[in-house]
Amino acid sequence: MKETIPRKTVYRLSLYNRCLDPLRERKDETISSEALAELAGVKPTQLRKDLAYCGQFGRRGLGYNIRQLHARLAAVLGHTVPQPVILVGAGNLGSALLRSGGFPREGFEIVAAFDTKPALRQDSPTPVLAMSRLKRFVRDQTIKIAILCIPAAAAQEVCNELVGNGIQAILNFAPLVLKVPEQIIVNNVDLAIELESLSYFIK
Amino acid sequence: MKETIPRKTVYRLSLYNRCLDPLRERKDETISSEALAELAGVKPTQLRKDLAYCGQFGRRGLGYNIRQLHARLAAVLGHTVPQPVILVGAGNLGSALLRSGGFPREGFEIVAAFDTKPALRQDSPTPVLAMSRLKRFVRDQTIKIAILCIPAAAAQEVCNELVGNGIQAILNFAPLVLKVPEQIIVNNVDLAIELESLSYFIK
Repeated sequence: MKETIPRKTVYRLSLYNRCLDPLRERKDETISSEALAELAGVKPTQLRKDLAYCGQFGRRGLGYNIRQLHARLAAVLGHTVPQPVILVGAGNLGSALLRSGGFPREGFEIVAAFDTKPALRQDSPTPVLAMSRLKRFVRDQTIKIAILCIPAAAAQEVCNELVGNGIQAILNFAPLVLKVPEQIIVNNVDLAIELESLSYFIK
Repeated sequence: MKETIPRKTVYRLSLYNRCLDPLRERKDETISSEALAELAGVKPTQLRKDLAYCGQFGRRGLGYNIRQLHARLAAVLGHTVPQPVILVGAGNLGSALLRSGGFPREGFEIVAAFDTKPALRQDSPTPVLAMSRLKRFVRDQTIKIAILCIPAAAAQEVCNELVGNGIQAILNFAPLVLKVPEQIIVNNVDLAIELESLSYFIK
């Protein structure tokens, strides 16, 4: 079952859930597929196709029950249980993520950070530990998700250590393409590439 | 001509250029399409299809001349001229981007930041100005790219102001889908969604 939902669909399911948040706060009860698609910036046909992976929803003319849809998406995405995450590299970006307190609303808690100079990073609310403690921590706490905020030169080596000790998914901010075994999932956030691909389109 | 390269291709062209960096530093002269495709994590057929948008490259059996390919990609991507960028919202993430000094290598300089509490942000090497100065600055300096690091609640309003004053492209970190006119390009980086879409795949 798990493997049958494509990566891009999973991404959009998460996006739909995000779009439901303000509606839930406003205590709205239902939303049409057209309206939800517009909020998410996708076509209604795309939305309906994506939601079909989550089972039957909505009735023609009545739209989706917002509370039910949210609960179902959360269950499918697997974040009904809080997920511990580690962060490697507490430099500018890493520190900013630590100070922001992680993503509690989405069920992600940054439980520890690791850095080559942990003594310099003690203003963080999350413990910042020496890199030498990384391996054991990941194993003992059975951590499965890591956020990588280190320079490109060190990233592949650290990635290998993470994967070798049980990490299954990496959110990678290091500006390089990591080589990982097929079963490991990497999402890349490369801010320079995001900017560069914008600049092509300006006049 | 400009509009004929699809967005996803532009993104990959930028990625290929990034992958050439270490080869240029090592003074390598050529690279095969297979090798470059592997570095970028795409299929060789995809790479060749993408590069076809940039004109003729490489000769069968000889591979690509690295220096030439890099120059051509930079020219197509339009960052042979440094591009001034503004940043709106100098909180945790915005400050981290300011301290990192922008992306000079890729030709992007953050020339000013704007914040509702500029007095609190004066440790930045880049000037942090009051929001009231945003409109005039964008017009006077003909800024075309903005990085948005503000809370979701304020993002649409600020986005409207940016677009109304000449911004054509936005790198958006605010966790919502911005509504913009068709000719405006938005790249979204939503870290919570990145994490959430990873967590689906872990066992």
